[in-house]
Amino acid sequence: MPSYDQNNIFAKILRGELPCHKVYEDDKALAFLDIMPRAPGHTLVLPKAPARNILDCPPDDLAHVHKVAQKIAKAAIGAFGADGITVQQFNESAGGQVVFHLHVHVIPRKAGEMMKPPAEFKEKPEVLAEQAKKLAAALASD
Amino acid sequence: MPSYDQNNIFAKILRGELPCHKVYEDDKALAFLDIMPRAPGHTLVLPKAPARNILDCPPDDLAHVHKVAQKIAKAAIGAFGADGITVQQFNESAGGQVVFHLHVHVIPRKAGEMMKPPAEFKEKPEVLAEQAKKLAAALASD
Repeated sequence: MPSYDQNNIFAKILRGELPCHKVYEDDKALAFLDIMPRAPGHTLVLPKAPARNILDCPPDDLAHVHKVAQKIAKAAIGAFGADGITVQQFNESAGGQVVFHLHVHVIPRKAGEMMKPPAEFKEKPEVLAEQAKKLAAALASD
Repeated sequence: MPSYDQNNIFAKILRGELPCHKVYEDDKALAFLDIMPRAPGHTLVLPKAPARNILDCPPDDLAHVHKVAQKIAKAAIGAFGADGITVQQFNESAGGQVVFHLHVHVIPRKAGEMMKPPAEFKEKPEVLAEQAKKLAAALASD
């Protein structure tokens, strides 16, 4: 497996060099909205420490990221009126990974609505800003 | 959300009332091969304690399940010559869940090979038995 690339786009977001629609942050994890959501409220959860994917992530960091993903899943049910949640996590290109800093997809789902194909639809920034605010508020009220 | 159903098929496997192609077990988790794999070596990881899905699972149980999923992902790379790993976890019918005991899918992937559609292809028991043996051996040698 290639080593961690410090210049991947999520590393830049973590260093504050690029903006994001943040929904949650603690000392070990950051969560923000996917700008190409497969459904409204599609959130990405990342460990702050460098990790390419599941194959090199320290187990405790991976566990923490999934605990944060769970908080977001629960909050998203109320915030977006979701009926279910799809969690996905891709590792290496063959596994579906596109950005090489570990991230967990938390995708709110509604009954009868398919997910959009990956990387097809780019959401408007103002819509993402509103959704991030709503989800962050739901998380804070837990 | 409906409450946990003690008669779901994975609860029966956990109680030993139904067989499975086991690859890993500890005091809090069980992992076995999916009998309808989307790719060779497709493994399911479950908490032993009752949990319908991410919405009701105790956070520490969820974290442990993902640590086990990570062990399996790493072992599967070698055991099946995989190039990547796709991790999925579905919650409620709208989220893609079919069996209502929380489970994490760990799917070994090869470059250029699509996953089979869900619940379409049933693998032969003798093939599953051989794959389970191979993956369990890779896990034990870690």
